[in-house]
Amino acid sequence: MKFYYAPNTCAVASHIALEEAGASYETQRLDFSKSEQRSDDYLRVNPKGRVPALVTEQGIITETPAILTYVAQTYPASRLAPLDDNYAFAKMQEFNAYLCATVHVAHAHRLRGVRWCDDPGVIEALKLKVPLNMAECFHLIETELFQGPWVLGEQYSVSDMYLFTVSQWLEGDSVAIADFPRVAEMAQRMLTKAAVQTVLAANTN
Amino acid sequence: MKFYYAPNTCAVASHIALEEAGASYETQRLDFSKSEQRSDDYLRVNPKGRVPALVTEQGIITETPAILTYVAQTYPASRLAPLDDNYAFAKMQEFNAYLCATVHVAHAHRLRGVRWCDDPGVIEALKLKVPLNMAECFHLIETELFQGPWVLGEQYSVSDMYLFTVSQWLEGDSVAIADFPRVAEMAQRMLTKAAVQTVLAANTN
Repeated sequence: MKFYYAPNTCAVASHIALEEAGASYETQRLDFSKSEQRSDDYLRVNPKGRVPALVTEQGIITETPAILTYVAQTYPASRLAPLDDNYAFAKMQEFNAYLCATVHVAHAHRLRGVRWCDDPGVIEALKLKVPLNMAECFHLIETELFQGPWVLGEQYSVSDMYLFTVSQWLEGDSVAIADFPRVAEMAQRMLTKAAVQTVLAANTN
Repeated sequence: MKFYYAPNTCAVASHIALEEAGASYETQRLDFSKSEQRSDDYLRVNPKGRVPALVTEQGIITETPAILTYVAQTYPASRLAPLDDNYAFAKMQEFNAYLCATVHVAHAHRLRGVRWCDDPGVIEALKLKVPLNMAECFHLIETELFQGPWVLGEQYSVSDMYLFTVSQWLEGDSVAIADFPRVAEMAQRMLTKAAVQTVLAANTN
């Protein structure tokens, strides 16, 4: 398999899942500062011009929630998702959908406002509510959604990889992760994992 | 089971899935014009204050992609998703994630701009790019993502229910569905299904 990513994007989550699964894959890092995600070559991989993208023998998969469940299902021995319990699987999907469609979107209004408007003044104005929205999202996660010690309770899953990834954006969004002590403690635990250290090294070096 | 919905929201997709599965469920319709989704009673069901929500014997599930796969997995005989093929399942998830996190979000900037800003002038300005963004999303669906005759090819699936639902918002977003003939033809086929007619009646009466 071949995994396309760009540093410090939501691709970190799928990257950790591939490492935790012990998957055999190579990586291709894109430089957003050079707009490599808009190159003709990459648009043939993912016409959306986004990361992550995972090239498999059968075809190409995009969208973080899809890649996360694909990796978990393809490497069931790694136990990265509750595959044998429809309800637990649904709660994992629910959490991943919330991160994908609400939390990531709230964050994107700081640096990617151009997706939704063209006026520079409006793009600038969209940055104002980002700290409040991200804090509200993480308050809901901390008090309602996060079971502890992991997102789904006792089972470590792809939802932890995804939440860890998004939690690393809080500081840039002017929100203190320390305000959400259960999430903060989980993120610290994630940093001790070899898979996470491998992925972060691939993002920073 | 009990299904909470509000008319003409993304809850239509899960509602069709429940009908197609032959599930036993009752419904509770919320009136957004009375802010019933923000009532104390409903916030105990879904603290996000959104629809849909599905109350099961094991607990409550929210988020459209999660409910769609839960219904498909719980009623496998209805064949609403490719449950036995990890890659095909991932492509379904990929499509649902795109609708959830990109297309629905693009649409929401017309009527729900207050989620991302407080200034009335900025909220108004966010409406301007909605037709362009929705047209771009449906162009990608029409030319790249939609396999035909259904989203995933020969197999009718929950992705069709979801795409049908979102396609019904195009007119309100000042986009002509006729510009996307393959999607338009699929939506017409959906309208002939008994399950779809039952759900639309529950949304309009």
